[in-house]
Amino acid sequence: MEKIGKHTIKFMTPPTITSTASIVGPKEMEGPLSSYFDKCLEDEFWGEKSWEKAESKILKETAYMAIKKSNISISNIDFCFAGDLLNQCISSSFALRDSNIPFIGIFGACSTFVEGLGLASVFIDGGAGKNILCTASSHFCSAEKQFRFPLELGNQRPQSSQWTVTGAGAALLSSSGNGPFVTHFTPGRIVDMGIKDANNMGAAMAPAALDTLLTHFEDTGRNPSYYDAIITGDLGHVGKEILIELSQSKGFNIKSNYNDCGVLIFDKEKQDTHAGGSGCACCGTVFSGYLFNMLQNKKYKKILLIATGALMNSTSTQQGESIPGIAHAVSIEC
Amino acid sequence: MEKIGKHTIKFMTPPTITSTASIVGPKEMEGPLSSYFDKCLEDEFWGEKSWEKAESKILKETAYMAIKKSNISISNIDFCFAGDLLNQCISSSFALRDSNIPFIGIFGACSTFVEGLGLASVFIDGGAGKNILCTASSHFCSAEKQFRFPLELGNQRPQSSQWTVTGAGAALLSSSGNGPFVTHFTPGRIVDMGIKDANNMGAAMAPAALDTLLTHFEDTGRNPSYYDAIITGDLGHVGKEILIELSQSKGFNIKSNYNDCGVLIFDKEKQDTHAGGSGCACCGTVFSGYLFNMLQNKKYKKILLIATGALMNSTSTQQGESIPGIAHAVSIEC
Repeated sequence: MEKIGKHTIKFMTPPTITSTASIVGPKEMEGPLSSYFDKCLEDEFWGEKSWEKAESKILKETAYMAIKKSNISISNIDFCFAGDLLNQCISSSFALRDSNIPFIGIFGACSTFVEGLGLASVFIDGGAGKNILCTASSHFCSAEKQFRFPLELGNQRPQSSQWTVTGAGAALLSSSGNGPFVTHFTPGRIVDMGIKDANNMGAAMAPAALDTLLTHFEDTGRNPSYYDAIITGDLGHVGKEILIELSQSKGFNIKSNYNDCGVLIFDKEKQDTHAGGSGCACCGTVFSGYLFNMLQNKKYKKILLIATGALMNSTSTQQGESIPGIAHAVSIEC
Repeated sequence: MEKIGKHTIKFMTPPTITSTASIVGPKEMEGPLSSYFDKCLEDEFWGEKSWEKAESKILKETAYMAIKKSNISISNIDFCFAGDLLNQCISSSFALRDSNIPFIGIFGACSTFVEGLGLASVFIDGGAGKNILCTASSHFCSAEKQFRFPLELGNQRPQSSQWTVTGAGAALLSSSGNGPFVTHFTPGRIVDMGIKDANNMGAAMAPAALDTLLTHFEDTGRNPSYYDAIITGDLGHVGKEILIELSQSKGFNIKSNYNDCGVLIFDKEKQDTHAGGSGCACCGTVFSGYLFNMLQNKKYKKILLIATGALMNSTSTQQGESIPGIAHAVSIEC
C-alpha cells in the first residue's frame, strides 16, 4: 500500500469483501430495505434479560453468520476488528469472547464499521493476515437508555433526533477473491464546529463528512461522478441536506448520486423515525445487507462509503461540551 | 510484514520509537519512578472544572509533548491511534480534536497503549504512513466515579483492588530511525475465566496475559530468557503472582526477568495503593517514562511489553456478568 495525498491509503492488492451478514430489529425489518437483511429479531430482547445482552447476542450471531457464509473455517480467521456504542464496547467484547479470534477493539462511534473495514484492509494488504472479520452493533433501547432517557419515561423526541438502528453488520475481508475490493481508505480528522445539541447529531457530524469527502477527492484526484454512489453512514435527513449544501459551496455537486444509510433504512413518512437512522449498525447493516448486494449484482460498481461518528458521551454533554464529529471513508470497487 | 505462527505479526522493517512523553498525577510522582516522568499535575483537576476535562488535558499535553520531542512537524504526523477508559473514549477525542491529525479511535481497556503501538507498527511497516502517534490516558478520579463509587462517599477498597493511574503516555513511531524498534506484535484473544469481582482485575486479566505470552513464545520460537525484561501492563501484585504461577505450570519460568507496570509505579509499603496501579496510563506512563529510558540507555535491549485489559463496564457487572480479559504484546528491541 502507499499513502497518497494528505491522508488516503491506496491498496496495492486490494482486499476482497468475501462475505457479509446483517441482523436487524423488528422496526428495521418494516423499513424499505427489509428484503436485504439476513435475519430479524422477534423482539428487542431476543430472549435475553437485558438490552445490552440482546445487542451482544446480535453482534455474535451476525459475526458467526458472516464467517459461515464465507465458507472459511473460523480457525483461519486471523483477527477481528469490532466495536459498538455501549460503554467500554461491551457488546463486542462479550459477543466475541468465545470465538478464539484475536480481538482488536476499535471505537469510532457510528463510524466504527468503516474504521474496521479500513484497518482490516491495511492488515491484509500489508501481509499481516489473510482473513479478517469486521463487525459493529447498536441497539435502539440500550442507546436511548445510555445516551438520552430511559424508554420508560416516554419522552418526546424532537424532529431533528435520529433513531438508533437495532442490529449488527459484519464483513469478512480476504487477501484473495473476486471482489468487491476495498481500494482506498481515507481516515478522518476530528471536526468540531461547536454544535451542542445531542438531538441533532446529523448537523454535528456533517462537517466531518465534508472534510473526509474533500480530502478523499483531493488525495485521489477523483470527483463525485467517479462513483456510482456516495453513501454516508448516519447523517440522516438533516445532516444529508447539510452535506449536500456544504459540498456545493466547495464546488462539488453530489446531489445526483449521494445518499445516507440513515435515510435509506427507514420510511420517513410511515415509520415515525424523525430524522432517520443512526448508530454503528446503521451503516453496518445497510452496507452488509443492501449495498453489498448492489455491488455483487453489479448495480453499483464503485461506491464511496463514509461512516460518520459523534465522539461524545452523556457526561460531556452535561458538562456543556460541544460534539466532535469524525468520518472515515473507504472506496469499494468491483 | 508477515504473520508467523498462529497470531504474531513480524515486521520486516521494524518501526522506530522516535520519542515518548509521560505526564502523571501527584501520587504517581511520589512513587519510585518519579524521575522518569516528564511532568506532574499540581492537583487532580489541573485547572479544569471536571476530572474528565482534566484527563483530556493530560492526554493532549502528553501527545503534543511527544511530537515536540521528536522534532517532527505536526503536519508530518500521518495518523494518530488513541483511546482511554472514559465512556466513548472522550478523553482522547476531546484532546485531539484540534490537532488536525487523522484520528483512529481504539479501545482495549488498559491494553489500549500497546494496541496502539501494534497498529501503528502495522501501518508503518505496510507503507500506510511514516510517522504515527500512539497515546492513551486514565485518571483515578474519573475512573472511580465511572466504574466504582463517587470518591465523595469515601468507600473502603479491598486489598485486591488496584489504583487507576492518573496520567497519559504517548509514543511517536517512525519508519526510519535508530530504534528502539517494534519487531513483533501479538494481538490477544479474549479470555474469560468467569471471575466477577471488579475489585480483583489482576486475577481476571492474568489468564489473558498467559494466553498471549504462550502464543508469543510459540509463534516466535523464543522463550522467556530471550528478553531482558517481560513487562505486563497492570496485573498488579495479585495478578503478577498469578501469572508467574500459571506460566510455571506451562513450563515457563518468568520469575527472574518479569515485572508489572502496576507493581513498578507505586511503593506498596508507603503509598496505600493496595494491589498496585492500573489503567491505560499505567502501561502508558511506565513505558513512555521508565522503560523507554532503559531502552535508550541500553540497560534493556529486548523487552516484551504485554498490556492487559478488562473488557467490562459497570452495567455488565450489575447484570452479573464475568470479566473478559485481553492482553496485547509488542516486542521492542534495540
